[in-house]
Amino acid sequence: MTAETRTEFDACAYVDAIAAKAEQAARVLASADTAQKNAALTRAAKALRDNAARLVEANGLDVDAAKAAGRTDAFIDRLTLDGDRVEAMATALEQIAGLPDPIGRILHETDRPNGLKIQRVATPIGVIGMIYESRPNVGADAGALCLKSGNAVILRGGSESLNSTRIIIECMREGLAEAGLPEAAISLIDTPDRAAVGALLSCTEHVDLVIPRGGKSLVARVRDEAKVPTLLHLDGNCHFYVHEAADLDKAATVLTNAKLRRTGVCGATESLVVDRKVAGDFLPKALDSLGACEVRGEADAVKIDGRIKPAAANDFDTEYLDAILSVKVVDGIDEALDFIAAHSSSHTESILTEDAEAAERFLTEVDSAVVMHNASTQFSDGGEFGMGAEIGIATGKMHARGPVGLEQLTSFKYRVRGSGQTRP
Amino acid sequence: MTAETRTEFDACAYVDAIAAKAEQAARVLASADTAQKNAALTRAAKALRDNAARLVEANGLDVDAAKAAGRTDAFIDRLTLDGDRVEAMATALEQIAGLPDPIGRILHETDRPNGLKIQRVATPIGVIGMIYESRPNVGADAGALCLKSGNAVILRGGSESLNSTRIIIECMREGLAEAGLPEAAISLIDTPDRAAVGALLSCTEHVDLVIPRGGKSLVARVRDEAKVPTLLHLDGNCHFYVHEAADLDKAATVLTNAKLRRTGVCGATESLVVDRKVAGDFLPKALDSLGACEVRGEADAVKIDGRIKPAAANDFDTEYLDAILSVKVVDGIDEALDFIAAHSSSHTESILTEDAEAAERFLTEVDSAVVMHNASTQFSDGGEFGMGAEIGIATGKMHARGPVGLEQLTSFKYRVRGSGQTRP
Repeated sequence: MTAETRTEFDACAYVDAIAAKAEQAARVLASADTAQKNAALTRAAKALRDNAARLVEANGLDVDAAKAAGRTDAFIDRLTLDGDRVEAMATALEQIAGLPDPIGRILHETDRPNGLKIQRVATPIGVIGMIYESRPNVGADAGALCLKSGNAVILRGGSESLNSTRIIIECMREGLAEAGLPEAAISLIDTPDRAAVGALLSCTEHVDLVIPRGGKSLVARVRDEAKVPTLLHLDGNCHFYVHEAADLDKAATVLTNAKLRRTGVCGATESLVVDRKVAGDFLPKALDSLGACEVRGEADAVKIDGRIKPAAANDFDTEYLDAILSVKVVDGIDEALDFIAAHSSSHTESILTEDAEAAERFLTEVDSAVVMHNASTQFSDGGEFGMGAEIGIATGKMHARGPVGLEQLTSFKYRVRGSGQTRP
Repeated sequence: MTAETRTEFDACAYVDAIAAKAEQAARVLASADTAQKNAALTRAAKALRDNAARLVEANGLDVDAAKAAGRTDAFIDRLTLDGDRVEAMATALEQIAGLPDPIGRILHETDRPNGLKIQRVATPIGVIGMIYESRPNVGADAGALCLKSGNAVILRGGSESLNSTRIIIECMREGLAEAGLPEAAISLIDTPDRAAVGALLSCTEHVDLVIPRGGKSLVARVRDEAKVPTLLHLDGNCHFYVHEAADLDKAATVLTNAKLRRTGVCGATESLVVDRKVAGDFLPKALDSLGACEVRGEADAVKIDGRIKPAAANDFDTEYLDAILSVKVVDGIDEALDFIAAHSSSHTESILTEDAEAAERFLTEVDSAVVMHNASTQFSDGGEFGMGAEIGIATGKMHARGPVGLEQLTSFKYRVRGSGQTRP
């Protein structure tokens, strides 16, 4: 045990007991049929609506405590629930009930010469730990996505939203119970003790996957400490490459959307890479379009447009999540690809060009979860990809990359049907 | 640094330098075309044949040292190469060249209402670490599978086979060089220092995946120490369930194959579960068929057939890898499913029954990589599944389960093609 977990409160035993029950519930959920899972979701939506007033009242306690603790306005806004937000949460559960069931899909099928029929079939993963921060609705969304994909989930929300989260989980469990499913399928780590997070990350016996959702320090902690598998992204340092054969007006319009539509999302462009041949024409056009957005570049960029401020060494590795853009001038696509390989966080990169060959090269050679041609990086989102909903975005190479939706919350197994075959 | 890595030799720096070069090579390999990869494989096969005498000679040094160290006959056999075994290695490379290229497959495609065309495309994983023990041919097989799937590989064979492995890798790299591909795509950790294994398992900056292949202590070390993702199986404690509606003659024949065809493979049956209703008829039949195989059971089984020896508490959790079988008598399919859930290592389980409903329930509810109906567990193998070749078997839930072949050595990315779309 580390010093952190050597407390009076035994976080390991506490989390282990919850996780063992979740594992039992996962066994039941794995063979629950679609109608039963959907009934749990629609009943949970009803319970949220029925308990809206209680939930908003409990949320008031969280908000008051956060204000007293001097939290930022942005934090308070993410934390706050009102009638409309509760209704949106309930509607989201109903939408997830309406999505196709990802379990039982036949992913591959083969008949062998010896008569064995082999199917690869989608199955639940098992028990998923979800660690998130202030936004209470993440608990409802994540609970619903895990339930629909046949997984038990253990939720660990931010300690600042615990009063709100308790009631949300109560409603979700009411839905489970009314549908005849085990309540432990959606469980809450009901303690603000941070050692509980460490215990969840180490619980390889009962937990199959942990997904963190929140700020960089939370995600970094999960990445560094987890003994269980994880799906996560630390950074969204997304690049927007204006190739020499780009339509520059189109590029300026798309760049402005990619950078400024919402600056706080992980698919927002943080770095502009532009070919030297067109930089003189493009940069002034881009700066006109970007308006008040601050642009930082090296000397060659500053020389082209005086509105560009000198970049520091770490600018090209910074996810601003703000109205700031770094710019790098390159001598053609080879240097662009090398620059992106060196600085990308493997989230999303886009090339703007009318040259089909350059576009294909970029789409092939850039090793990111999402690579785009002539499109805004802000499209990097499960909803925009037609997944219906997402629980997060992954930038690792294993299991799932990009938006993590229902299909990505599944594993698979092989079903082999024979008639008494023996292996020679 | 742990005590283990605090040696004169800086294992971390050594492995890091190899892995950084492998990562560069992986970038090149990711866009190599199929013909180029196949050329590297067939040239490597030729190099192996051309160097067969040198390889057998170097292998002699390894074998002599292993004999002097008092290694078992089985170990010496796994280590030994002769002309036939070198030829088999070369042929395996040519067979892998003949398999379909798993890279670039379109896994999913969708056209969005806004005109964006989104494809999910198979890509290499990147850099794969392969840790194995005495059998030198694993280096050639794993190198070839990684190369064909566009991945760079870092091989760490058993220190006892280092003289052999050096020449095998030399031949593989000759193939790469002749095909115009970077030699660092197949790299060797050329030191017997065990700290190098720890360094590889911690090298999250450059290594995307580690696959161990060998005995339980090696695999357990990888599972416990790895900071990078892994694909592995620790145990193959496979169950063979004879349901009350089984054809008992068929069941005895299939069981004998499942247990005894080869006892040392991970898909061999280790535990027989039999319904009480048929145990009296089945067990004597099974024991007749199993011949000299030792069978261990609880008192109720011993009572049915005196050839059954009393089982100890840990028998039901033991992967014998030998001509020994544990037997558990159960009161129907519910108890069988609970027993398997409690003792299975999630590798392979088979039900023998003529009752289709019971079979479907077993195939649905047993949560193992491979579940079978009326078939020998020894079919749990990439070759038997039509994959052409396998690098290992995985029993985790993430990324790949069951045999790990070329397709399982891939990741994916999303390619989004637009015409200047911005997100509203």
